Amino acid sequence: MKLYSYFRSSASFRVRIVLNLKQLPYDYDAVHLVKQGGAQHTPAYLALNPMGAVPSLDDDGKVLTQSMAMCEYLEELHPQPALLPVDAFERAWVRSVCNLVACDIHPVNNLRILKYLTGPLALTEEQKTAWYHHWIAQGFTALEKLVAQKAGTYCCGDEPSLADAFVVPQIWNAARFACPMEDYPTLRRIYENAMLLPAFEQAAPAAQPDAE
Amino acid sequence: MKLYSYFRSSASFRVRIVLNLKQLPYDYDAVHLVKQGGAQHTPAYLALNPMGAVPSLDDDGKVLTQSMAMCEYLEELHPQPALLPVDAFERAWVRSVCNLVACDIHPVNNLRILKYLTGPLALTEEQKTAWYHHWIAQGFTALEKLVAQKAGTYCCGDEPSLADAFVVPQIWNAARFACPMEDYPTLRRIYENAMLLPAFEQAAPAAQPDAE
Repeated sequence: MKLYSYFRSSASFRVRIVLNLKQLPYDYDAVHLVKQGGAQHTPAYLALNPMGAVPSLDDDGKVLTQSMAMCEYLEELHPQPALLPVDAFERAWVRSVCNLVACDIHPVNNLRILKYLTGPLALTEEQKTAWYHHWIAQGFTALEKLVAQKAGTYCCGDEPSLADAFVVPQIWNAARFACPMEDYPTLRRIYENAMLLPAFEQAAPAAQPDAE
Repeated sequence: MKLYSYFRSSASFRVRIVLNLKQLPYDYDAVHLVKQGGAQHTPAYLALNPMGAVPSLDDDGKVLTQSMAMCEYLEELHPQPALLPVDAFERAWVRSVCNLVACDIHPVNNLRILKYLTGPLALTEEQKTAWYHHWIAQGFTALEKLVAQKAGTYCCGDEPSLADAFVVPQIWNAARFACPMEDYPTLRRIYENAMLLPAFEQAAPAAQPDAE
């Protein structure tokens, strides 16, 4: 398997966590999102991933885009260790945590959006930072309440699940933009616990071959 | 089952399609997102759905948020008719279509974002419309290429799948904002085909009890 990844991309970070938790070896193909206009916009990469986003996962020529779809694929093909609970409602609950991050929090603060704010809309750096913090605060307020429903050591009880693979990279991202975290004790605790696991620590941006 | 829904919400529209395709009866609880500051912000509703978003699904007291998590839940509990293919890669491909809509296209143009543009950022209506069209054009260009890989009558061959339940409401939404569609022949065809099915037509905004 080959993962097209960028060290700082939190969507890539999610899939790296899942690959590590399942102990699946993979090749790392770095896609530099910033240098020289962005390697994600080359015709060769767009042929793999029409959205021009990372990650992409190439499993022996079969290429997937979208981190959540990749995680579900890896869970179906490599069910151990299970990253979704057995009970149908609990499985859906874990997915709802993933989706709150992947649909409600992350997309609004993605690189392409921030570039549009300071480019075409000519907003200031202060307005961009206020934008970023606003959506993190709104999203994390909801995420804290949702996760607190079932949290133990990790988001859903005492075993890591797909929920942690989505929550941890988003918290890493928020920390990079210096978002206040004091109102989210459950999220903070889960982040600290998860980052003690080698699967998470080795998936973190600083541990990637393209880290700067 | 009870669905908390708003007629124009495309995320609600997705779940209504899936409920209809599976012929599952449900109660409709209208959450008016616009009137009187928004019924999604009341303490009672926030206790159900901390994000203050629609839809929410109440299955005998067990409440789910996030449309994709609901669709996966309904697919697991009510597997017929199947809305995900059997093959693992095809299942992931269908999910990638859903996620391209739910993560890359829809969130950026959601009501709360548009309100922030014209509220705190004091942008003009023209700038708001340009924003909306920009992200639809970027997203639909990618979606057209992705869907064309496997499209038949519907997104994935000749049977409706979860992919159609996500693509169709997004196209309905884009039409409401008068987005040009001539560059997306596959998406247009799928929309027309799907809307011939009663499950889709009866899930459309105009057919809801709270339609205006």
